[in-house]
Amino acid sequence: MAARVLYDLAGADPAVRFSPYCWRVRLALAHKGLEVETRPWRFMERDALAPSGQSKVPVLVEGDVWLADSLAIARHLEEAYPDRPALFPRAGGLGEARLVVAYADTVLNPALAPLYVADIHAMLDEGDKAYFRESREARFGTSLEALAAARAGRVEAARKALLPLRHTLRDQPFLAGEVPAYADYAVFGAFMWTRAVSTFDILEEGDAVFAWRERMLDLFDGLARRAPRAV
Amino acid sequence: MAARVLYDLAGADPAVRFSPYCWRVRLALAHKGLEVETRPWRFMERDALAPSGQSKVPVLVEGDVWLADSLAIARHLEEAYPDRPALFPRAGGLGEARLVVAYADTVLNPALAPLYVADIHAMLDEGDKAYFRESREARFGTSLEALAAARAGRVEAARKALLPLRHTLRDQPFLAGEVPAYADYAVFGAFMWTRAVSTFDILEEGDAVFAWRERMLDLFDGLARRAPRAV
Repeated sequence: MAARVLYDLAGADPAVRFSPYCWRVRLALAHKGLEVETRPWRFMERDALAPSGQSKVPVLVEGDVWLADSLAIARHLEEAYPDRPALFPRAGGLGEARLVVAYADTVLNPALAPLYVADIHAMLDEGDKAYFRESREARFGTSLEALAAARAGRVEAARKALLPLRHTLRDQPFLAGEVPAYADYAVFGAFMWTRAVSTFDILEEGDAVFAWRERMLDLFDGLARRAPRAV
Repeated sequence: MAARVLYDLAGADPAVRFSPYCWRVRLALAHKGLEVETRPWRFMERDALAPSGQSKVPVLVEGDVWLADSLAIARHLEEAYPDRPALFPRAGGLGEARLVVAYADTVLNPALAPLYVADIHAMLDEGDKAYFRESREARFGTSLEALAAARAGRVEAARKALLPLRHTLRDQPFLAGEVPAYADYAVFGAFMWTRAVSTFDILEEGDAVFAWRERMLDLFDGLARRAPRAV
């Protein structure tokens, strides 16, 4: 066997490699400047992967070490080849935190908004209510009352929007890593928004996102936990 | 006026602050250890924000500098107070890249999959086709033919899943920042997957995501651009 082999999902034409996860590994290897033999693999060839304990690719073999799972492979490459270009670099700027902010803006907040706009309306100053109702009913194309009535049916979709958080928090205590930073605040803002206006909560105890939210509420001597709520 | 004032969205009870974006700034200020007067603001009080050129909060006033937009404020704080704890830190581990990977796994790839599974089936080795059809039809609860027929109707939802990319790439050339890294590969894998199996493309020229994909295709002497396609 070559020094380094990647089992790489192929179609009928063995030259066509189409797995998004194998491509992650392929490019991570190129980034590290590492040679690899990419071996075409089909779904039915489970036996070939047996030493990895997995039935799916990507599987990377380095000497007699078998590695499965694209992220586990990336972590391994980063650790095993620290002198090569970093896969998880720490250069200036916002870096990957920019996408965390964008996720909060475009996935999380829009998923939560329809569940809470009626609660927001209820706690607004009288002078703000007409503006808020008109602008939000135009945005959602329906009445605040209809949104409130549809809430239970939207919980599942909202929980689905939390999946990136749940996956991340399986691996690390904060979205920014070992300690909280702006990525955490950008996302946590959504939970302060809903907490201020409502007792309706889409998180359940035992969820890693729930535990993270508890840690966030405790930061800065409970700054967020102590914040007044309308309910 | 106090040295630093945050105009902070309030409900009828001025103590209740519920804007997710104002909370981002509030916590970013706490992270930096900076004092602030948080001034309750209602939607109708647009005149109060006039010097910022904005009609929405958060607006932060430091001396005679008026700043709007939560992310712009965070960038300003990071730049103005570099000796305080970093909002966009560069410590070890995967950091925020972990959530980029999770976004690709749980938002982007699932949004693209139903558009492309019929194309994938068509290019598979004969030995893989029965397994693939059975497992994917079970996953999506419908036939591959029905998924193919519904493709045009699903494009808008898939484009919506790209919003975090579009927002990020407005500000920086790669998802990891100035240079590509694993966050880019994790997301780009999705586009290699669809490119290998289909000519159907949900990206349009002029889209920042399209331009980023072009840059990714060119990396490593065109490693990805040269990859064989089934179509």
